[in-house]
Amino acid sequence: MLREAVHHIAHGNYAYPVSEDTLRVMLRTAKGDMKRVSVLYQDRYGGSEPFVATMEVVAEDELFSFYQVDLKLDTKRFGYVFLLDDGKNQVFYTEKGFFDDVPPNTQFHYPYIAIRDLWEPPKWAQGAVVYQIFPERFANGDPTNDPSNVEPWDAQPTVTSQKGGDLQGVIDRFGHLVDLGVDVIYFTPIFEAPSNHKYDTVDYYRIDPHFGDEDTVRKLIELAHENGIKVVFDAVFNHSGYGFFAFQDVLEHGEDSPYAHWFNIDSFPVQTEPPNYETFANQIATMPKLMTCHDDVKEYFLEVGRYWVREFGIDGWRLDVANEIDHHFWREFREAVKSENPDALIVGELWHEASEWVRGDQFDSVMNYSFQYACLDFFAKNTIRARAFANRLAKVQVNHTQAVNLSMFNLLDSHDTERFLTTCGGNVQKMALAVAFQLTYEGAPMIYYGDEVGMEGFNDPDCRRGMIWDPNEQNEDLLAWYRRLIALRREHPVLRLGHCKTVWADSATNIYGFVRFNEGEQVLVLLNNQAKPQSVDLTVVAWPVAVPKQVRDLLTDEKFALGEVLLEPYGARILS
Amino acid sequence: MLREAVHHIAHGNYAYPVSEDTLRVMLRTAKGDMKRVSVLYQDRYGGSEPFVATMEVVAEDELFSFYQVDLKLDTKRFGYVFLLDDGKNQVFYTEKGFFDDVPPNTQFHYPYIAIRDLWEPPKWAQGAVVYQIFPERFANGDPTNDPSNVEPWDAQPTVTSQKGGDLQGVIDRFGHLVDLGVDVIYFTPIFEAPSNHKYDTVDYYRIDPHFGDEDTVRKLIELAHENGIKVVFDAVFNHSGYGFFAFQDVLEHGEDSPYAHWFNIDSFPVQTEPPNYETFANQIATMPKLMTCHDDVKEYFLEVGRYWVREFGIDGWRLDVANEIDHHFWREFREAVKSENPDALIVGELWHEASEWVRGDQFDSVMNYSFQYACLDFFAKNTIRARAFANRLAKVQVNHTQAVNLSMFNLLDSHDTERFLTTCGGNVQKMALAVAFQLTYEGAPMIYYGDEVGMEGFNDPDCRRGMIWDPNEQNEDLLAWYRRLIALRREHPVLRLGHCKTVWADSATNIYGFVRFNEGEQVLVLLNNQAKPQSVDLTVVAWPVAVPKQVRDLLTDEKFALGEVLLEPYGARILS
Repeated sequence: MLREAVHHIAHGNYAYPVSEDTLRVMLRTAKGDMKRVSVLYQDRYGGSEPFVATMEVVAEDELFSFYQVDLKLDTKRFGYVFLLDDGKNQVFYTEKGFFDDVPPNTQFHYPYIAIRDLWEPPKWAQGAVVYQIFPERFANGDPTNDPSNVEPWDAQPTVTSQKGGDLQGVIDRFGHLVDLGVDVIYFTPIFEAPSNHKYDTVDYYRIDPHFGDEDTVRKLIELAHENGIKVVFDAVFNHSGYGFFAFQDVLEHGEDSPYAHWFNIDSFPVQTEPPNYETFANQIATMPKLMTCHDDVKEYFLEVGRYWVREFGIDGWRLDVANEIDHHFWREFREAVKSENPDALIVGELWHEASEWVRGDQFDSVMNYSFQYACLDFFAKNTIRARAFANRLAKVQVNHTQAVNLSMFNLLDSHDTERFLTTCGGNVQKMALAVAFQLTYEGAPMIYYGDEVGMEGFNDPDCRRGMIWDPNEQNEDLLAWYRRLIALRREHPVLRLGHCKTVWADSATNIYGFVRFNEGEQVLVLLNNQAKPQSVDLTVVAWPVAVPKQVRDLLTDEKFALGEVLLEPYGARILS
Repeated sequence: MLREAVHHIAHGNYAYPVSEDTLRVMLRTAKGDMKRVSVLYQDRYGGSEPFVATMEVVAEDELFSFYQVDLKLDTKRFGYVFLLDDGKNQVFYTEKGFFDDVPPNTQFHYPYIAIRDLWEPPKWAQGAVVYQIFPERFANGDPTNDPSNVEPWDAQPTVTSQKGGDLQGVIDRFGHLVDLGVDVIYFTPIFEAPSNHKYDTVDYYRIDPHFGDEDTVRKLIELAHENGIKVVFDAVFNHSGYGFFAFQDVLEHGEDSPYAHWFNIDSFPVQTEPPNYETFANQIATMPKLMTCHDDVKEYFLEVGRYWVREFGIDGWRLDVANEIDHHFWREFREAVKSENPDALIVGELWHEASEWVRGDQFDSVMNYSFQYACLDFFAKNTIRARAFANRLAKVQVNHTQAVNLSMFNLLDSHDTERFLTTCGGNVQKMALAVAFQLTYEGAPMIYYGDEVGMEGFNDPDCRRGMIWDPNEQNEDLLAWYRRLIALRREHPVLRLGHCKTVWADSATNIYGFVRFNEGEQVLVLLNNQAKPQSVDLTVVAWPVAVPKQVRDLLTDEKFALGEVLLEPYGARILS
């Protein structure tokens, strides 16, 4: 028994309530080290004999097995220890280490399930399909509001290109989103700003005039809501734009400005080349860093957060550079936004391990770049094989509660990355396989505008080309594939909300498979990440619910008995 | 290299800022597995070549070595990986696992040191000596306010005893606290309540009339502050007393009471035998559980928290049954209390692993019962030996930031446990050895009233006897020992604020030793937990700062060259 591998803490992802009387506990051991893992639990004040629950393996990576079980106690106060059995020894694992018997005062305690600590992301976000729109490049619905220097829609974009996309364009093309079947639109910033990306906000209370006005936004949100689609805006509170009134005031009045403390300025007068003030990233003079540590700065942006929810009914915020703003601000931001709409969604931009931010006090979800990296490496670049891919997915999965995992914005690409199809070298088969994974796996799949019609593009600015609307230039097969998979997701709630477990990960064949399941229903997804046909023996699959007698192919509606199933080159099978 | 043992996360106790540009990182490995551990770090947006820092072992338990180092970057944005060298292999440990070289997008990120996230408990609490007073049993200064059923001071206490102790008694005996040298007094509850312990509050805004009134409290706090002593009150917000106005209103008006939702009542009318409502622990009818999940309940108790800080200048709160109240309440409680006095201390009652509560958003410190259990087992009961004792201490130490460790209320006993001397079987030598440890080790040592004069007592109610004031009955030697050690702590700031590292833990001789150190200064404490004289060779000690040429005994002022040093039976040496 490898004791060094065993891990549990009585909070976070290792112990969290899933209802008023039920605690979900997880234990980590060395991979495959145990024959049986149980948990002995009782009211933490003692009394009766402990109950015993057997734990199940829910995930495995290259080093560890993760066991899980739900414990129920009417009194909501849990004291527990784990009993580890490797076939040779039985050892108790407690808060104070390993023992043959359980000494006094060594139990793990989850002291009490307080109602107020029960949380999950909004139900509507769990498993939702998200569509990301970069408004300057999606559609130009109103040429009268175009910038003066507008370029042809299909010209190669540069860092400073303006193409005239706007919100009326989104309204005009709304049918595309409805036909696709998306549940949520996430807009990159639409507030007044000089750049095409508008991450350099000038006025947090004004729609950029090149995008439209308040009426356009109201019309757009109404249209979305009529179609059952939620709308998420982008909040840039890490930094303002150069033209933001407060920064302009500091430029004008120097240290006498009442806004001097809104920024971190080394000395006066303010210089911009190079900037003598803190900025986003490394010395980007047009994006001065905001000092949200000061109460007046904090209050200004909390009100921005409240305003658009209250006055325009937006359904949530995506938070730019979320991890460079203090946790304290985000805790208050959550309170502020949820006070206007308890069902609003809060999604942080985080490119790395994010568990600190999705514990119930800050964000509901994050941009899941760990998911993207794994898909890039497995499907697009082929730098990792099926087992390593499964390991990478497991690492993310065990880091969060299930409800958070269901709400993670699972992206293949974004306005900040190369287009996925480009990384695939233009190989649509590879892309389609990745999309099958994205749209069936646990999470909220996020589609970057145009991916669904086969758009390509290297890193920014190339990944921000004008949306392809000419049906002759769109990849119809790929578009149909997206529609089919999204429809399948709607037809089968288990593909939105079911548990998710890897059941096949073979680096030799490079076939990866997982099952989405809930009580009674299970869907097996098999992905053949090779350029040749291969088969999987379904009788060997570790079906989590029960071994079915026959399966149905959800894409072809064909039914057949359990046995060998063929996978086309880069083919996917979705079997129920 | 045992990869399963290696652990790091980029937050919590494994990565935390210690100043505006300095990040402290910790890495765990299998015990003694590595020859060298380094961290390669740079601005997370890249740019220059990474810096390399060598990590030092700061703690070890039975399975793991814990390495630590401080990283400094002007840009405050950290990307880093660890380089592990076991003498045979060099392997990088990253957010995505182990690699021979560092692939893209695998660094750990500590995204930014935001000023608002920098935190530590109040400076005054770090290393402070705390004295716990149970007012009903400390001193009777005003017999006119005694309860009618008062018993003789030295009668064996029962669960319902009243002895007449009060706040005037504390004022009268204040010289004892000043002579002892304490920095903080923590009072168990003093608000109106029928019981002797007053954890069944009737009125959170009224001093119990048997203890005094507002004038007595003001006089007492003024006296304390004149003597440089802080005052911490006890907040009982998990439950109220039966006589609390809100519960009385519910008893009278049932579900029509505007306070019906303040409690969790199964059905109406309310019954008390057995209670048909949720209570503290298991069905204690006199302590109905408070539903702090409701805004009006929350606001009522937040104002209690503010009121005594604002109106009476108390210096902090100790929070009863803190872990059965929601985290959300405590986050707001922190804001509320610190808005009145940013330097106020907030200490939670937690008997178990507490890291979740001391991350900067809730408590500053907790009652360190893990410390108590370790001391009981090692010094009083001799159920563990020196190495196991060191392991237990290490587990607590690595769970928190250093500033939190310095503020932990390190207790040997309390009103809720048997007296430590009693667990020692009345052996004052053992007690004195434990006290030497308590008063030199990292933390805020908490002395339960009367321990310093040799009081004994089994569990509640026996541990709550009337304080011994007759000098003939006090253990003068023990009292002198407490005074000497507390004075030493004042004379040597390193004993209050220095780092702390175990340097000797030998289960054969049962000698335990640690060094408190800061830049340039180090104090070695050696504790002989055996009934026979033993010696330690000081040239073999792993002095953390530098090997001294000679040492000075801080208790005797004797100086001698480095060599063998004798330890009396149950003796302590404190060497600088």
